[in-house]
Amino acid sequence: MASLTSSQASILARPSSRRCSPLPTDRHHVSLSPRDLLSSFPCLRAFSPSLRRLATRRPGGIISAHATEVSLVEKSVNTIRFLAIDAVEKAKSGHPGLPMGCAPMGHILFDEVMNYNPKNPYWFNRDRFILSAGHGCMLQYALLHLAGYDSVREQDLKNFRQWESRTPGHPENFETPGVEVTTGPLGQGIANAVGLALAEKHLAARFNKPDSQIVDHYTYAILGDGCQMEGIANEACSLAGHWGLGKLIAFYDDNHISIDGDTEIAFTENVETRFEGLGWHVIWVKNGNTGYDEIRAAIKEAKAVQDKPTLIKITTTIGYGSPNKANSYSVHGSALGEKEVDATRKNLGWPYGPFHVPEDVKSHWSRHVSEGAALETEWNAKFADYEKKYPQEAAELKSIVTVNLPTGWEKSLPTYTPESPADATRNLSQQCLNALAKVLPGFLGGSADLASSNMTLLKMFGDFQKNAPEERNLRFGVREHSMGAICNGITCHSPGLIPYCATFFVFTDYMRAAIRLSALSQAGVIYVMTHDSIGLGEDGPTHQPIEHVASFRAMPNILMLRPADGTETAGAYKVAVENRKRPSILALSRQKLPHLPGTSVEGVEKGGYVISDNSTGNRPDVILMGTGSELEIAAKAGEKLRGEGRAVRVVSLVSWELFDEQSEEYKESVLPSEVSARVSIEAGSTFGWEKMVGCKGKAIGVDSFGASAPADVLYKKFGLTVDAVVAAAKEVC
Amino acid sequence: MASLTSSQASILARPSSRRCSPLPTDRHHVSLSPRDLLSSFPCLRAFSPSLRRLATRRPGGIISAHATEVSLVEKSVNTIRFLAIDAVEKAKSGHPGLPMGCAPMGHILFDEVMNYNPKNPYWFNRDRFILSAGHGCMLQYALLHLAGYDSVREQDLKNFRQWESRTPGHPENFETPGVEVTTGPLGQGIANAVGLALAEKHLAARFNKPDSQIVDHYTYAILGDGCQMEGIANEACSLAGHWGLGKLIAFYDDNHISIDGDTEIAFTENVETRFEGLGWHVIWVKNGNTGYDEIRAAIKEAKAVQDKPTLIKITTTIGYGSPNKANSYSVHGSALGEKEVDATRKNLGWPYGPFHVPEDVKSHWSRHVSEGAALETEWNAKFADYEKKYPQEAAELKSIVTVNLPTGWEKSLPTYTPESPADATRNLSQQCLNALAKVLPGFLGGSADLASSNMTLLKMFGDFQKNAPEERNLRFGVREHSMGAICNGITCHSPGLIPYCATFFVFTDYMRAAIRLSALSQAGVIYVMTHDSIGLGEDGPTHQPIEHVASFRAMPNILMLRPADGTETAGAYKVAVENRKRPSILALSRQKLPHLPGTSVEGVEKGGYVISDNSTGNRPDVILMGTGSELEIAAKAGEKLRGEGRAVRVVSLVSWELFDEQSEEYKESVLPSEVSARVSIEAGSTFGWEKMVGCKGKAIGVDSFGASAPADVLYKKFGLTVDAVVAAAKEVC
Repeated sequence: MASLTSSQASILARPSSRRCSPLPTDRHHVSLSPRDLLSSFPCLRAFSPSLRRLATRRPGGIISAHATEVSLVEKSVNTIRFLAIDAVEKAKSGHPGLPMGCAPMGHILFDEVMNYNPKNPYWFNRDRFILSAGHGCMLQYALLHLAGYDSVREQDLKNFRQWESRTPGHPENFETPGVEVTTGPLGQGIANAVGLALAEKHLAARFNKPDSQIVDHYTYAILGDGCQMEGIANEACSLAGHWGLGKLIAFYDDNHISIDGDTEIAFTENVETRFEGLGWHVIWVKNGNTGYDEIRAAIKEAKAVQDKPTLIKITTTIGYGSPNKANSYSVHGSALGEKEVDATRKNLGWPYGPFHVPEDVKSHWSRHVSEGAALETEWNAKFADYEKKYPQEAAELKSIVTVNLPTGWEKSLPTYTPESPADATRNLSQQCLNALAKVLPGFLGGSADLASSNMTLLKMFGDFQKNAPEERNLRFGVREHSMGAICNGITCHSPGLIPYCATFFVFTDYMRAAIRLSALSQAGVIYVMTHDSIGLGEDGPTHQPIEHVASFRAMPNILMLRPADGTETAGAYKVAVENRKRPSILALSRQKLPHLPGTSVEGVEKGGYVISDNSTGNRPDVILMGTGSELEIAAKAGEKLRGEGRAVRVVSLVSWELFDEQSEEYKESVLPSEVSARVSIEAGSTFGWEKMVGCKGKAIGVDSFGASAPADVLYKKFGLTVDAVVAAAKEVC
Repeated sequence: MASLTSSQASILARPSSRRCSPLPTDRHHVSLSPRDLLSSFPCLRAFSPSLRRLATRRPGGIISAHATEVSLVEKSVNTIRFLAIDAVEKAKSGHPGLPMGCAPMGHILFDEVMNYNPKNPYWFNRDRFILSAGHGCMLQYALLHLAGYDSVREQDLKNFRQWESRTPGHPENFETPGVEVTTGPLGQGIANAVGLALAEKHLAARFNKPDSQIVDHYTYAILGDGCQMEGIANEACSLAGHWGLGKLIAFYDDNHISIDGDTEIAFTENVETRFEGLGWHVIWVKNGNTGYDEIRAAIKEAKAVQDKPTLIKITTTIGYGSPNKANSYSVHGSALGEKEVDATRKNLGWPYGPFHVPEDVKSHWSRHVSEGAALETEWNAKFADYEKKYPQEAAELKSIVTVNLPTGWEKSLPTYTPESPADATRNLSQQCLNALAKVLPGFLGGSADLASSNMTLLKMFGDFQKNAPEERNLRFGVREHSMGAICNGITCHSPGLIPYCATFFVFTDYMRAAIRLSALSQAGVIYVMTHDSIGLGEDGPTHQPIEHVASFRAMPNILMLRPADGTETAGAYKVAVENRKRPSILALSRQKLPHLPGTSVEGVEKGGYVISDNSTGNRPDVILMGTGSELEIAAKAGEKLRGEGRAVRVVSLVSWELFDEQSEEYKESVLPSEVSARVSIEAGSTFGWEKMVGCKGKAIGVDSFGASAPADVLYKKFGLTVDAVVAAAKEVC
């Protein structure tokens, strides 16, 4: 032990307590081989070179370390419980039940198992923790607080659920450093966790070397009964099993209570059997309330299984410690009430006032700041070494960790002229995707079983699979919802990971909750949505989006882009890649479109711009507007009207959000307020177009469901024609 | 046999072939006891009184019947295959692969197993068939055609996927009688099937008597790999297992091919194990291509298991018979091409031209018309008998079968005055739900584990459960997506079943695909969506809808209602119940709202109406508009402005769709075009409000995500205040 500093010694105490079974009630000694220690708890490797040497030098040797006292563990666990109880009580709003039940697993994860650096929540190689049951966020806030994160100080706990606090009612990655993803909508978090674990496996496969495991961390998640019931969770877990994400460890908080009461009333399936079917390793911890050693043993077992993700079903009591409300739905989502808080304090023998962290608990947790710093320092040194040996890989990895896009990346995007052969924007999109994948090291993605329809395959890469995790084509199967959430997880893993995902545009309906979370959590996922209108033809109304463009225009912090040709498609990708804190949806056609004179990448960047005009003095007789496949119709109508002597401006409104952000002057230069004769055409709902065509204009679109017939027939039957635009223009002029 | 007519004799031939194993290759005889026959194939009971008597009189006796020749079965199966091949080929678009692989199970279901009446596709007690893998719709069209449905005649097959045909690219219940629900979006159909089976179990429990099984049918579904991957399918199947829907029999077409190729690339879970975990009985038919007897035996086994739904995993070859394309993705979604069609004809020994149904096949199937008529006649007689014995139950059941709402039902809805105590519209909604349940026999529903938050419990009923299927509170668990689809199935079962379902409004994102199918398939589901704005407070932006009202206003054929108080809530329910072919979404508040002077049920029915006005001659100085919880703010601002001498009109715009449908004259009387000074307020996206406020008006709303804080703080911070409305009104006046 002579070569270990005292700080390192205290660290050694952590894992030891996990390995004693049964755990005695007072201070004790355990014997561990260093090799054993290191293989079970790789975190120790990073900051304990002496221990590593010891392990190397004396493979059969043993070391001795002090375990954390059980009483201190219990005290720490109760601290977590009461921080949650007190914060919810003060806010008179929140969910105390889960934190009270999950405090033991939370304590063990954050105090004994996970590698992280509280003073740099963004340290690349940290273990990731996801609270999929996001309503129990006070668990996470209490843990971040104890661990020393600056984002959750005592005052923040006291401001729980208040205006501008860093402790909102559900975990928000954009508010609280230390929170990896935004959760609350059930099932999303476990799907995000699958994305994070995928990212780790992918990057490890690409960048690790026999002499340097530069990417090496676990992803932990806690999910509840509610998450388990959601379809998205099953989708994501089916993929996790398929991909063999061995470093994903999910705790299923089996507390038998959901808002409606006992889960018996709606949830009697055998979750273990289902997960075995999904290809997971399953462990059941029967006593999640006080069985610390059971929990530790389960984590050890989970880590030992490297080819499968592990589900640790952990039976707990919701609201553990509350004498009158534990094990009932009443403790799920409301403050306990003053009386019951007092009763719980008595019941758990907690003599302290609200928000109090006992000194010994504080002191015990205080080491995480120095340990975390040491972990990062150690990793940085390792990375410096890696950089020397593997400069090219290091540069690539750096650009993924830091999102420094390579200079001139946008020049890789294809260019087109009006002479280029007409093509569907879904095909032009594929050219862009393949161009970007060549220059962006963090670019990867795939489709929900429609790769050959969405045209999303990256030709120079193979499929990301269990045994080919270095590849970049993701095969999501027909699982749109989890696809979106997995992509959220991927981009939240490292800001330079730029995931795209694809399906038919109408099926954004299946994944809307995930898309909204991209927007809310500032996750710059690129949604490649083909078959974007009735123009898809024969598949009929179940497959034809109508209201979808409008519905995303109404959603905050998302870019809805509907490019009209090759140039606009390239422009849309430029915008999408640049917007790392805002997701983009690209609506792309199944049908061929010509490359239009006047379209430009710069125009797309402004969201709306003039593609042709024969007027003077910013006073055309009429303005024709279109997006996507209908811009061609607007352009043709413009030509026809000009042939009849009219001064006509044709405007592309490829992205309303970007156009909205332009200066008033610019907007006026495109859509002068004095010109009220305006006609728009878009193969979708006209809802919202009043904003663009004004009170006297006319919006041509489709306000009913579509139909099954060839595309050209549908365009005629639904009145999406040059003649219709010309007639409308004459009406409004 | 003397007492059986020849028609009956031919029917007897059907089941017999199912029971012979191995099936000989030529005409053969089998021995069956009538009791045995009747217990396995209850369809026989209905139209074979002599057989029933025989069974009663001679329990140990045996009868003899001729089996359908195997060669004829094969010929029929190939007829189905080629009708699909030819229709897709003619349309140059469609999905031949599934019909070619599933023709054997399709044949057995429609020719040997199912009870239906081709000339009355709406006969109440028919077995229901759902093609969840809706892209394979040519299977269903071919079967309906052979069975004698008028909706699918030869010409319809030739018009496959053409404008105004009755054979669209995916099955549409509103286009093609005989199609029970609209499928295509994967996973929806199996969830619909759960709803249909739930409806059967519920109605059987309520109406069957020891001496009369007046409700007694099966629900069959075919789902593919794609359906299996979708989360909604797992949700629905978990519920089906929980509810013990023993008369639901699902065929899982295990063909190992999806659009992206072999399912190995994305779908390697063990489906059987998963379904066992979900509480299903699971059977594997290894030869779904030619193993007719295996299929028959599996159905028999499935029927014998009465307390669990059954999954028959049936391994087939996609595109069976195509020598060069079978078992590949290329046969999934494209026409085979002339050459391959010829090769397939040769390969399967099919000498006939396109769309030809051989005479012996035609003649074999022709009996279904008379048999189906007999089935219905028999059932009608049974019902007449039932009606005599149980007039009250018969009347109730009739109203469910025919959707004759009881006279004066709407009078049951509660009434309010401005003096009634302020309350949240979610609570007022509960009063309406409970009032309606008392008078509408087909009214049932529930929440996705939020009954106590959505306020949706029907107090006079218990929970619908496996052993209490007569009850009407449905406990969906946290499964929004399947909840919507199950409700679609319930209302498609019988037009008088009026299902409602509930969650937080923001979580319509989880179920949007199902809601859209309600709208498209004209399923009048009532969506009770509480917590409808940032007014829900502390739960924060993950739970606060912003763009949702706008997103549904853009969706065709749906009513988006946002009532402001008790009267409007009652009005919204009146509208929702009346609209049996259009779903309704009620957005309801968590926070208390006063009952406003001037609101009215009649006003709600018009969608938009004046609640107060101190102007004369239809020329107010300003029009203030609001919906839901913000109508109160508009009303207060109106009072304030009137106090300052202005002529102010306050308008409720509770449903834009209903308002749009009013006469131009009426609309002008509410929103006179000459009055351009207009201000709207709504706690949601302002997207689309230009339509109402016009070019000079102002829309107050929330165009960013919300935040976690108490509701009153949020309203102030987001500018949803009386002062803001007053200030805006002064600006526009």
